[in-house]
Parts: sequence; C-alpha cells; structure tokens
Amino acid sequence: MTQTKKNVNVEQQAIEAKKASKKLMVLSEKEKDEALNHLADVLERDYETILAANEKDLQNGREQGFTEAFMDRLALSKERIADFAQGLRDVAKLEDPTRRVLSDWTLENGLKVEKVTVPLGVIGMIYEARPNVTVDATGLALKSGNAIVLKGGSSAIHSNEAIVQVMHKGLAETKIPKEAVQFIASTDRAATNELFTMKEHIDVLIPRGGGKLIQAVVENATVPVLETGVGNCHVYIDQTADVEKAIQILVNAKTDRPAVCNAAETLVVHKEWLEQHAEALIAAFEQNGITVHGDEYIQKTIPGTIPAGEEDWANEYLSTDIAVKAVDDLTEAIAHIEAYGTKHSEAIISEDQESVDTFFALVDAAALYHNASTRFTDGGALGFGAEIGISTQKLHARGPMGLPALTTVKFLMKGTGQIR
Amino acid sequence: MTQTKKNVNVEQQAIEAKKASKKLMVLSEKEKDEALNHLADVLERDYETILAANEKDLQNGREQGFTEAFMDRLALSKERIADFAQGLRDVAKLEDPTRRVLSDWTLENGLKVEKVTVPLGVIGMIYEARPNVTVDATGLALKSGNAIVLKGGSSAIHSNEAIVQVMHKGLAETKIPKEAVQFIASTDRAATNELFTMKEHIDVLIPRGGGKLIQAVVENATVPVLETGVGNCHVYIDQTADVEKAIQILVNAKTDRPAVCNAAETLVVHKEWLEQHAEALIAAFEQNGITVHGDEYIQKTIPGTIPAGEEDWANEYLSTDIAVKAVDDLTEAIAHIEAYGTKHSEAIISEDQESVDTFFALVDAAALYHNASTRFTDGGALGFGAEIGISTQKLHARGPMGLPALTTVKFLMKGTGQIR
Repeated sequence: MTQTKKNVNVEQQAIEAKKASKKLMVLSEKEKDEALNHLADVLERDYETILAANEKDLQNGREQGFTEAFMDRLALSKERIADFAQGLRDVAKLEDPTRRVLSDWTLENGLKVEKVTVPLGVIGMIYEARPNVTVDATGLALKSGNAIVLKGGSSAIHSNEAIVQVMHKGLAETKIPKEAVQFIASTDRAATNELFTMKEHIDVLIPRGGGKLIQAVVENATVPVLETGVGNCHVYIDQTADVEKAIQILVNAKTDRPAVCNAAETLVVHKEWLEQHAEALIAAFEQNGITVHGDEYIQKTIPGTIPAGEEDWANEYLSTDIAVKAVDDLTEAIAHIEAYGTKHSEAIISEDQESVDTFFALVDAAALYHNASTRFTDGGALGFGAEIGISTQKLHARGPMGLPALTTVKFLMKGTGQIR
Repeated sequence: MTQTKKNVNVEQQAIEAKKASKKLMVLSEKEKDEALNHLADVLERDYETILAANEKDLQNGREQGFTEAFMDRLALSKERIADFAQGLRDVAKLEDPTRRVLSDWTLENGLKVEKVTVPLGVIGMIYEARPNVTVDATGLALKSGNAIVLKGGSSAIHSNEAIVQVMHKGLAETKIPKEAVQFIASTDRAATNELFTMKEHIDVLIPRGGGKLIQAVVENATVPVLETGVGNCHVYIDQTADVEKAIQILVNAKTDRPAVCNAAETLVVHKEWLEQHAEALIAAFEQNGITVHGDEYIQKTIPGTIPAGEEDWANEYLSTDIAVKAVDDLTEAIAHIEAYGTKHSEAIISEDQESVDTFFALVDAAALYHNASTRFTDGGALGFGAEIGISTQKLHARGPMGLPALTTVKFLMKGTGQIR
C-alpha cells in the first residue's frame, strides 16, 4: 500500500481523536448531555444543509442504478433528521456508563482497590450506506466519553460529511472538542485499511454492514474488533411443538422484517411434526408469500420447493425466502445449527422441557429462544435504550450491545505506602 | 506454509477439543471439582514419570547453555509437582464462574430474559518455558468448563508432554473426557501458526511469555486474543511526595521481584523533589544494588548514571536496572508514561490529591496506584484466587484475570409464543 497524502491525514485525524479523547474523559455527565442535546438542536436547525448534500448522494445513486430499497435507506428528509436528533436526546437521557465502581475492597494491608469503568478512548466506526449511523454512533461514543473516527460508505459520503460538518459547528458551542468526532472524507479503500492497524491511536474498531465488510475488518485488523451482526438464524420446530405457536413464531421471525439480522433464515423441522402438520405449514408459507428452498425430504413434502444446497444453508436470504431442513431428532438439528449458524439468535419451538434444556446448553449463540420469535435480539426490544450493534463474538460483549460495551475498566489502588 | 502431516493433526486436535468442550459444558460443578482433585492426586502419585521427562529437558538445556535462571524455572522436583497439585485443589475450591445469572428481567409481553455466564468453549494456550503453566492453565480451563489446547515452548516439551500424559491417565477416571486437554507435541513453529486462524474450533488464544511471543500472536491471529502481560511500569515521584514512602515504594517496586511484569522499570521524578532528596535517593540505589540509566539531568545529579536512550525508556529491564527521567511537572510525567507505558501498572507518589486525581483520570493503564507499590497487580495479591494472566488490553478483561475472564454470556429467552 503506497501512502498517499490522504492516508497520512487519516493518521493525523486518529491522533487528534486520541488527544480529544483525553479531554472528553474528564467531562461531567451533565457537560456531555448538554452537548448531545445541543447537537440535536443544531441538526434540526441546519437540516437543509444536510438535505442538499443528501441530494448529491441520491443523484449519484440514481445514476448508478441502486435498488429501491437501497435508495430508501439512503434518502433523508426533515422528519428523518428530526428522528436522528431525537435519538441523540434519548442517548443523553441514558445513564452514563463510565465512573461506575463495579467492585471495591480493601486488602489486609489497608490498600484500597476500586474497579471502575472508564471510556475505551477512541472508537473506529466502519459502516455502510445508512447515514443515521453517523449520528447514532457519534451520540453513543460521546455519551460514553469516547472520541470517534467515522468511515462511512462511499454511497452516502456527501450526506455523512454534511452531518459531521453540522455536528462540528454544534460542538464548537459545547465543552466537547470538535476533534472528538473525526470523519474520513475519502472513498479510498486504503483509508479504511489504514484504520485497521492504528493500535496506538484507535482502541476498538466496530464494523457495521454486510458480511464482506465485517470479514475484511476481522481478518485484517490488529486493532481489537467488536464484531457485529451477520445473523443466519434458525427456528427449530421440535416434534412436541404446538402447531399454532410454531407457525406464528416462524412466520413472525421470517417476515416481520426479513432484511434485519435477527430474522430467521432457516427452518429446521422434526420429521414427525412435519408429517402431522404439513398442511398447516404449507398454508402458512403460501399465505405469507414465503418461498421455500428445501432438502429432498422437504421437496417431497412441500409442493414447489426449490432444491436447497450449501449456499442456502450457509447464507442469509434477507428476503421472504426460507431454507427448510427436515431432521430425525434434536441432535441432528443442533448439529445443523452448529455447522451453519453464525452464533446470533436460535430458537426452539417445543413443549418438552428436556429438549429445551439441551438446546439451551448445547447451541452456541448470543441469544437462544424457547417458544418466541428471534426478532427480540435487539437493544431496543430488550430495553437497553440504545444499541451499538449486535455482537456475534464471545469476548467483551455478546448479543445486543448497549453503552457499557464502549467502556473498559481501571483498577484504582489507593495506598498509604503499601509494599509487598 | 506447506501442510505437513503434523499440522493436519493440530486441526484434528482442535476439533476433538471442540467436541469435548460440549461434553464438559454440561458437567456439574461437583463433577468438575472431583476431576480436578483426582488430577491433583494422580500428579503426586506419578511424579517420577514427570521428573524423568524433565531430566531430558534439563539435559538438553545444559547442552544448549541456557542461563541459570532459565534452568531454575525449567527444573521440577517432587515438591514443585506437589505445588502444582495443590494449585489444582485450590482452583477446585473456587466458585464456578459459569451458570451465573448476571441479570434477568421480563419484557412487557411476558418474555423472560436471562443473561447467563457460559464457558468460552476451547482455549488455545501458547506459552514459554515454565511447565507449571501446563497444569495451571488446564485447571483454570476445566474449572470454567472449557477445553484447552496447549502449545508449550520447545525447551520444556518433554516435561509438558509427560504432565499431559499423566493428566490424561487421570482424566480417564473422571467425568471429563481426556480430549478436553490437547497437547501439541511439536516444536514446529508452523504448528503454533496453525492455531492462529482456527476460528471455527478455538474460541480464544492466550499467549503467555515474552513480548515477542505476544506480539506474534496479536499480529497474526484471527482467533480473538487475550493479550497478557508486558509491563513497562513507571513510578512517578511528584514534587509533594513524602521521601520515606517514595523511596520505600520505589525500591520495593524495583527490587522485590525484578523479573515479573508488575515490577517498576522507570522512575519519573519531579525535578523539585529530586533537588531536595537526591542524597536519600542515591543512597537507596546504592544500598539496593540498583543500576541507574538516566537522562542528562539525572546524569548530572546522580553519580555513575549510565546515559539512557530510547531503548531504556521503551523496554523492560527485568533486572535491578532502572531508567530515570527528570520532569518539570505532572503533565510531562503523564506524557512520558503515555509514550512508553504498556498500559499495565503505573504509580504516583504524592501528597497532593489534585495531582493524584489527574494521574488517575488521564493515565491509561489497567492498574493505577497512589502511594503504593506496583507489585500488587496480581490475581493472588488482589484475592482473585487464581490468575490466567494480566490483561494489558482493554476489551473483555483488563488487569489480573480470574476465572470469569474464561467465560462469555448467553441471553436465554423463555417465551410462551411471543412475536414482534
């Protein structure tokens, strides 16, 4: 990788973020909240600047022939910007996750030990299309006392840049230094790659977007990563499952919002249950416009099933398509989930507690459900107030991540001359 | 990297460990404790097997001309093996860190949510000379319900292999499958490198050893890493510091056990304090056989000072050498620690609370000390009962890591048909 002038700026921006993080770290909760509320006001006031920039991205998107769904996620309006502002006000109302004494004790020699939460320092956010991430991530970072370096997708670059400019103008009137919010105004992939290895200046990278983006970050970064969200989620219908619950939950998990990560992608179904309830299941698929891809057993049982292969088991459809696999028992179901799941959200529909216990003990995922839709794996739904993303990794944070995921701890030792 | 037959075995061993981890995960605390106590008995019973293997490593070490200190760490005896066994019994007595409900609540729709601790799965332990790590790490892994893949240093390979063979024999008489403890019996570096990328089978890598080993793991692993222990620790003596406390703490931090990671490596001293107390400081250095490396100011103040350069500021001596830097104020002291510290343990000796508060707020390290020796950054000293290592990273665990660092969480959702 040759170092272009632009890339050198990335390092400079990260250094400035680190410096700003030191100032941010000592602000009171009140000072941070006032700043966030002020940012909200300024976003609402200057919405036209943002809409003008957004129009450039939309124009560009139309020229490139982006899909309607993509264009919809990209498009801003006065109302959407008001939602961003409200999001900042909501984050301001959340409890400050820093300066919390998690535990404290005194050693026999009188040394006082306190384990206290502190900001991580600088967060590197690498994300795709949606401009709301620019505001949401900034709000969560600042509330938790962290500086942030934002690297958004090229399709939203004008919108993102305008949002950050407006926020910078707002920050100038608060106690938070504007250097605490850095925006990498480059569509150059090398700029993203530079962030991967800046261990000295960036404390954590959070990729948000498709599987490819996340993989690229996980594989190439030496900066620690908070891995978020690919959800190849399964609903397993056990032989004892109640038919109404099973179908209601499956349809909800599949169709409520098919494009989100906690939507179901595969139905694993016990053959005995299927034998009894094939008719009801087929009707539910038809009524809800669900396209079935299945193994040979399913092809025989459900008319019109498209043959499923490795691709179907391994990937998210993010549509109203579903992969269906028939199994002989719970063990086979768990093995399938182990082989193809992404450790996000997995459900069992069953009236047999022993099967549920086994499923809960052996399936390795952030969230496990008994007789409920996978759609509840969500910071908002669980009452976390705000969400950085849904961690599919095991270290540091797993499942929906609220503000505490953006903190670390310090052990503070208060002595009077203690030695060993 | 060409795949030798040996390397293929590494993957097979990791797969076996993963399978065993599923069995281990469902054992009760009592079953795990009984297994650990039995392992302790078997180690004591079969100590001669281990000593015979250790003799091969010692012989090899003598031929290679290893240092006396190194040979001492390598050498086993009946008593040392009894200590290993006692370590296992102590770990058995600790509280099981899994199956703990960290929080639970019920959503308005009646969905019950439990956040519960569970084992990580498979731990990859990459370590250097000391054979005690083989036993200690195994005990901690098994107690927390994890399988472990051990890759020790080549200098102790016969000892480590014999220890694992004895433990395998013991495990055969317990509920824990012997496949839960895998030992990579290869001195081939490629075998270590293979562990770096086995994300499917290994949940976390823990490197224990020198800075080079740790760097190699951090830079090359795609498996998440728990980074442990390089400690380039500083003692800062503020202008208001009490002379007796300052000298007692400094000498203890430097000389109590100079080779460990929580020993002090650099003294940062306020010039005003030094002007007043140079004589006492010089006497303390002389009386304790401490060799001083210092900046120009120190060279003028302390006779016999060896000129210090970048190398002195940046590295651990792990001996009774010390680097000394004179500063004009707290800001300069903090900047020096920021530039050269390894985020392990940093102390301020001061009678001024405001300086202490600033130091605690701005110095970025796992443990910060006011008027106490850095030597307390240690799981044993802090009462954790056992220690996997001392984390110098910010995510997941920071500072001394006890058993909870070897767990993650699951959200268990208990429903009655809830949908969104």
